[in-house]
Amino acid sequence: MEKYNYGVIGLGVMGRNLLYNIADNGFSVVGFDLDDEKVIELRKGVASGTKVVGTVSLEEFVLSLDSPRKVILMVPAGKPVDAVLESITPLLSPKDIVVDAGNSYFKDTERRIADLASKNLHFMGMGVSGGEQGARRGPSIMPGGDLEVFNLVKPMLEVISAKVKGEPCTAYMGKGAAGNYVKMVHNGIEYAIMQLISEAYDLLRKGANLNNNQLYEVFKRWNEGEMNSFLIEITRDIFQQKDDVTDGFLVDKILDKAGAKGTGKWTSQEAMEVGVSIPTIDIAVTSRILSAYKDERVKASQLYTKEEVKTPENTELFIKEVGEALYLSTLISYAQGLALLVKASEEYQFEIPLKDVVKIWRGGCIIRSVLLEKFYLAYSKYENLSNILLDQEISEIVKDKISSLRKTAAFAVSNGIPSLGIQSALGYFEAYTTASLPVNLLQAQRDYFGAHTYQRTDREGVFHTSWQNPNN
Amino acid sequence: MEKYNYGVIGLGVMGRNLLYNIADNGFSVVGFDLDDEKVIELRKGVASGTKVVGTVSLEEFVLSLDSPRKVILMVPAGKPVDAVLESITPLLSPKDIVVDAGNSYFKDTERRIADLASKNLHFMGMGVSGGEQGARRGPSIMPGGDLEVFNLVKPMLEVISAKVKGEPCTAYMGKGAAGNYVKMVHNGIEYAIMQLISEAYDLLRKGANLNNNQLYEVFKRWNEGEMNSFLIEITRDIFQQKDDVTDGFLVDKILDKAGAKGTGKWTSQEAMEVGVSIPTIDIAVTSRILSAYKDERVKASQLYTKEEVKTPENTELFIKEVGEALYLSTLISYAQGLALLVKASEEYQFEIPLKDVVKIWRGGCIIRSVLLEKFYLAYSKYENLSNILLDQEISEIVKDKISSLRKTAAFAVSNGIPSLGIQSALGYFEAYTTASLPVNLLQAQRDYFGAHTYQRTDREGVFHTSWQNPNN
Repeated sequence: MEKYNYGVIGLGVMGRNLLYNIADNGFSVVGFDLDDEKVIELRKGVASGTKVVGTVSLEEFVLSLDSPRKVILMVPAGKPVDAVLESITPLLSPKDIVVDAGNSYFKDTERRIADLASKNLHFMGMGVSGGEQGARRGPSIMPGGDLEVFNLVKPMLEVISAKVKGEPCTAYMGKGAAGNYVKMVHNGIEYAIMQLISEAYDLLRKGANLNNNQLYEVFKRWNEGEMNSFLIEITRDIFQQKDDVTDGFLVDKILDKAGAKGTGKWTSQEAMEVGVSIPTIDIAVTSRILSAYKDERVKASQLYTKEEVKTPENTELFIKEVGEALYLSTLISYAQGLALLVKASEEYQFEIPLKDVVKIWRGGCIIRSVLLEKFYLAYSKYENLSNILLDQEISEIVKDKISSLRKTAAFAVSNGIPSLGIQSALGYFEAYTTASLPVNLLQAQRDYFGAHTYQRTDREGVFHTSWQNPNN
Repeated sequence: MEKYNYGVIGLGVMGRNLLYNIADNGFSVVGFDLDDEKVIELRKGVASGTKVVGTVSLEEFVLSLDSPRKVILMVPAGKPVDAVLESITPLLSPKDIVVDAGNSYFKDTERRIADLASKNLHFMGMGVSGGEQGARRGPSIMPGGDLEVFNLVKPMLEVISAKVKGEPCTAYMGKGAAGNYVKMVHNGIEYAIMQLISEAYDLLRKGANLNNNQLYEVFKRWNEGEMNSFLIEITRDIFQQKDDVTDGFLVDKILDKAGAKGTGKWTSQEAMEVGVSIPTIDIAVTSRILSAYKDERVKASQLYTKEEVKTPENTELFIKEVGEALYLSTLISYAQGLALLVKASEEYQFEIPLKDVVKIWRGGCIIRSVLLEKFYLAYSKYENLSNILLDQEISEIVKDKISSLRKTAAFAVSNGIPSLGIQSALGYFEAYTTASLPVNLLQAQRDYFGAHTYQRTDREGVFHTSWQNPNN
């Protein structure tokens, strides 16, 4: 029987595209799905000169793989992954490798690594970003786990991944579930940037009355400069997309209720768990939630009518400031996410190489941007940077644009334009760069009513005061 | 052997004070702690005419209780509660009642209810707020669980609780772990209000250069009017407290690193789980985290020097606006927390009576304020209010103060003063009252790169578009 190099389980659009990508690069691949329509779909799209086969038989799938078997899962996170593992592990042989390429929760990955290890099997959590097109043409790939196992799949990952300056957008992300963790944080940052772009759009349409053609021009210009990134690029395109059904632009017909798959929420919940502040990601998560309360919002908008927005005097200047505010708040969102990776790496002993994280995010993934090149330089100089905002070169960018961010934030709040994301990025920056926060008062309150104690600025130790209420 | 009405396990300051409070009200109480120093401490403070005994023997403790036994736990949340339950359940008899009065995580309570039920024992989760003084003189008490069991302890809870207009600050909060859930959200709101007060303090000291004596006067005035509340009251007192060690005021000597016990974090994580937006609580949680990064903040403050704050022309007007901003953002924080209770009540079938929640929060607890009287009226008119902001009377207050909130928020961002809490409250309000958010763009992005589909404003259904990139 002929043997194949790789197996892919889950032939949805992501799995199928990843499979074709592997096959394009000279590997033979067998695909498995319980749904025979998906297998038929797979067969239809096989490129000439590639060696691909599909099956609905898990036994056939397993038997057709080279030893040690390399099985890539691309199935929805959670129970589906466990269901696949339950079916397949009895069929596998010692040293076989299962690579989970979905958005699995990192703690599930830790559990599965241990489960499979007890059966003498290898399990690896691997983040893949780039959407459908990325999976097909070159995603950013974030593998973690056992280094020796990683080395067995590394050559394949390097050829199928995106390339930036000839370098593959994949690297070893660290031990255990580091790959899933890095991907989770990637998605958290993605949430934040998408929220910020939507707020910039709102400011431009409400503040400067830009129409979709003008918005297209603005995002086109932004994408040609220092703001060049995948998300700015597709935003540009979105403003050009005509509606098939009616006249006009499609974007104006889309309902303003956001969906979510959970990785953003996990990032926020997890950051609170390990004690890292990522307010712009938190706000992006909560803003999606708020958007879903459409009926209540409509009702509330009737009770509270908004005043008219005071259009800025100089439209070009306003657009420039909004652009700089978006750029800087995006930078601050990356800073939050990267700071979470630093702390999590210590907390879980992942040993995440931050330098490689930003390196492989430069291409293929949803949050790719030219800004990541600057981060890569920063971490190349100093690998243990606790926060990207502390880098000298980065600080020059920040200082250059902070005035625009403050002005834009003030414009939004003065005019009643929702701007939770922009405010949270600015607020994070302001608090992070303040040596003395008013938290002394908060600690006094906690000690007053709950005897929670406090520290002092002028001596070591932990103190409690019997606070006096001279008025009662 | 003489029998006692109630037993209290855990004789720390909260447990001891609650015990004395019960005894003051004519019940006989036995206290238990493994630490004999705490038992000695308990004996020392027994008021004359009350019947209190302490023991380090759990057997003695159990044997000395009337049947059905009523045991109140006041031990730290988590493992300590399970440890106590493990020791005591073998000693109890069918129908005995264990009431957990600590800040237990609601899912732990659900588990414990089931565990004890399997042993024919009753378990009840009960939130208690008011700090040391509240526990001693009259806290706000939030019991939940089995209604019949609640009725057995109700007479005692009503006498020991705080009173407002002659009515006790305790009521049945709903089924299962509803009591713990309500207390968790209470604490989340507490986090938010404390954050907001600290920001108002920062604005007054940096914006209007107020010293502690002036701050005392401002908070004193605020506390005499519509802002009257426990947290404003103690803030007033804090600005009067002299330092024992040096000259000057104690508040200026307290280190600006906040501690946290976890209930705020739980509230935020849980709100994300059930899909309710509570950004001001999220921000309060993340701000405490950020405060703890003192060393980084000091470093960052050297890299990014702040410009001087532009003092407002009219100090009195500025103070008034900051006060109104604090009042309104506090109101919005309650709105977020209460909206979470509405959703959670559905989600977990708690059947939480919102009207009773705000009623019993009017006195005894840390977030008590005269504002709660207005919420009580709102829920009295319409029990199923999904958000307090939708009430007509409340909307009049909001409309009256929204301009001050926007001005204060704009002042803070323009002057580089951290104001995450204020911004999040305003931002929540702005988004909640906006019929059309820019989330249509975000949904377009999600569909563009991930084929996540979208809904339309003009017809039913779920749609996907093959988005065009005419530039590539």
